[in-house]
Amino acid sequence: MNATLSDGVVRAGESARERFYDSRGYGHPVDGGALELAPVEAAHLLYRGDLEGVDGQSFRTFLTSAAVSETAFLVYKDLRDRGFYLSPAREAWVADGVEVDTGERVDFVVYPRGSGPWDGEVAYRVTVVGERAPVAATDLGDAVLAVVDEESEITYLETARPEIEGSNEVSLPDEVPAELLDERVFVWDPPARLYESGFYGQRLDDQAGDVLQLSLVEAAYLVRQGALAVTGGAEAVLDRGRSVEGDRFDRRLRAYTTLRERGVVPKTGFKFGADFRTYAHVESVENLGHSELLVRVLDTDHAFAPRDLALDVRLAHGVRKEMAFALIDGGENAGIEWVSVGRLTP
Amino acid sequence: MNATLSDGVVRAGESARERFYDSRGYGHPVDGGALELAPVEAAHLLYRGDLEGVDGQSFRTFLTSAAVSETAFLVYKDLRDRGFYLSPAREAWVADGVEVDTGERVDFVVYPRGSGPWDGEVAYRVTVVGERAPVAATDLGDAVLAVVDEESEITYLETARPEIEGSNEVSLPDEVPAELLDERVFVWDPPARLYESGFYGQRLDDQAGDVLQLSLVEAAYLVRQGALAVTGGAEAVLDRGRSVEGDRFDRRLRAYTTLRERGVVPKTGFKFGADFRTYAHVESVENLGHSELLVRVLDTDHAFAPRDLALDVRLAHGVRKEMAFALIDGGENAGIEWVSVGRLTP
Repeated sequence: MNATLSDGVVRAGESARERFYDSRGYGHPVDGGALELAPVEAAHLLYRGDLEGVDGQSFRTFLTSAAVSETAFLVYKDLRDRGFYLSPAREAWVADGVEVDTGERVDFVVYPRGSGPWDGEVAYRVTVVGERAPVAATDLGDAVLAVVDEESEITYLETARPEIEGSNEVSLPDEVPAELLDERVFVWDPPARLYESGFYGQRLDDQAGDVLQLSLVEAAYLVRQGALAVTGGAEAVLDRGRSVEGDRFDRRLRAYTTLRERGVVPKTGFKFGADFRTYAHVESVENLGHSELLVRVLDTDHAFAPRDLALDVRLAHGVRKEMAFALIDGGENAGIEWVSVGRLTP
Repeated sequence: MNATLSDGVVRAGESARERFYDSRGYGHPVDGGALELAPVEAAHLLYRGDLEGVDGQSFRTFLTSAAVSETAFLVYKDLRDRGFYLSPAREAWVADGVEVDTGERVDFVVYPRGSGPWDGEVAYRVTVVGERAPVAATDLGDAVLAVVDEESEITYLETARPEIEGSNEVSLPDEVPAELLDERVFVWDPPARLYESGFYGQRLDDQAGDVLQLSLVEAAYLVRQGALAVTGGAEAVLDRGRSVEGDRFDRRLRAYTTLRERGVVPKTGFKFGADFRTYAHVESVENLGHSELLVRVLDTDHAFAPRDLALDVRLAHGVRKEMAFALIDGGENAGIEWVSVGRLTP
């Protein structure tokens, strides 16, 4: 069977509808009984030998033409190999009621195994990217990223919008004197609860009543809450933070503050290469338990190299945590958009 | 006991020599029987209550003065807590014959447990950095990095110069026709050994004789070796690589070429956020075995954020691989400096 390409759509005759759409979910039927196929679908049919040519072009010629993206083809083929039917994300291609435009760029609508374009159910919305294409942070949250690496292996990354919620409540002390050092704040005579109930800071020695070391972010938060008194006030801590980290300090402080407000305890994520690791429910400071999230704080404008995303996600998976990104724009009072990214095996 | 500070050195009287140097390895004795202490050593003696004051300053006043770095103190204290004696890395402070200047910045010479500054043995040379201070890639290779994070926790990173050596030998075919796509090269009719003995590329389907997909780096190497023929020759592949990756493509190709020349098989490290994972001894392509190294290719000028180093090292450790960096300068024929970084618990 041969087919023709025009205006980015491949058209095949009546028998194609039965062979390709009805029994295997390729394309979408149009009035008059013909079948319209996206070029990537036609390429797959050519690859399988089900279609002989598109305007006389073989699989090889068609794939290397401008009509088909090689990365889209590789992902399409991989999902087919995994037993899924899928459609290009265009209104006319999917069942009525299936939302295509989620505000993010989506390439394929993938149906649950055993379902097809006639069922109206969706397993994944998939965005195809090459490993070198930057991915806007604000494009994450709904779709699955299918990243095709340079050796044509595919990594699937699931993105979501996590709930940030914990049960930690702390009653803070009043204006405890503290001293600003180069990159930390020392509380020379700390009330026990700051560390033992609040999980703030780290003792210089592991003894009750010992000097408490706070990060600049912890200290800035506590000074703003009226719990610490530092010469120069909150501004002095903020100035120090900005001098060592620039704008990033403000973004991190906003994420820290939001986490605390939601009852989540943030501690440094340095050993995991992140800004924070977080604890939603802490029983005691001696046993913080297992931290659930790794948080990286980013500007809303951030674009990921897919490789960096793969690195974060792989690490988080290895330590049984969820990788979350706090996207913060420049505005002082703007909210935070939380996005999580994890591994997916479709 | 009191002591005095001048010219960056703390001086204590004769009894200090016996109490602090002879029995516990602090400072170094000078003519006349007195003891000279580095400020960080004096701070530690103040902290322990062994010294009452330095020019009348308490631990608290002395630590927050400009005389002592808080990060150096935290590392010094941590290593002492772990049972080590250590000296500031200055000629006069260590035993004769102990090399202090290795060309890298070193802060402390740490002696094996049970040894001290009088023994002439060295366990570690330690460089202290705060988590926000950039670390020049060329400063790695000999010293241990002690990174003090914002919550005053310390991460030790061991650095070394790994041997890059493998046993894979491949006899390449001659000028096999191949086709350049957007970001990969297809070999439509590949000789079996390219994949099966050479471990080049990935099959489109997992079948003998199937189309072989090569990365641009693999293809550029193979074209240069005369094993592949592509329209436009090696330049066409290089141009494509540079257009999608810029200079980085040339650096990666040089690292790839060196690895292959040394009998090591590089495959993509994308899933680990690296440039390559490498196999020194491959038995068969069906069972590549366990890859030993994760390789990140960097410009010689690169400076790491310690957090990024922590991320790479943590990931590599989690997947039981060694993290290696290939440092490449701009010169076409300059060599590659290989540096590895791993976790260390002193």
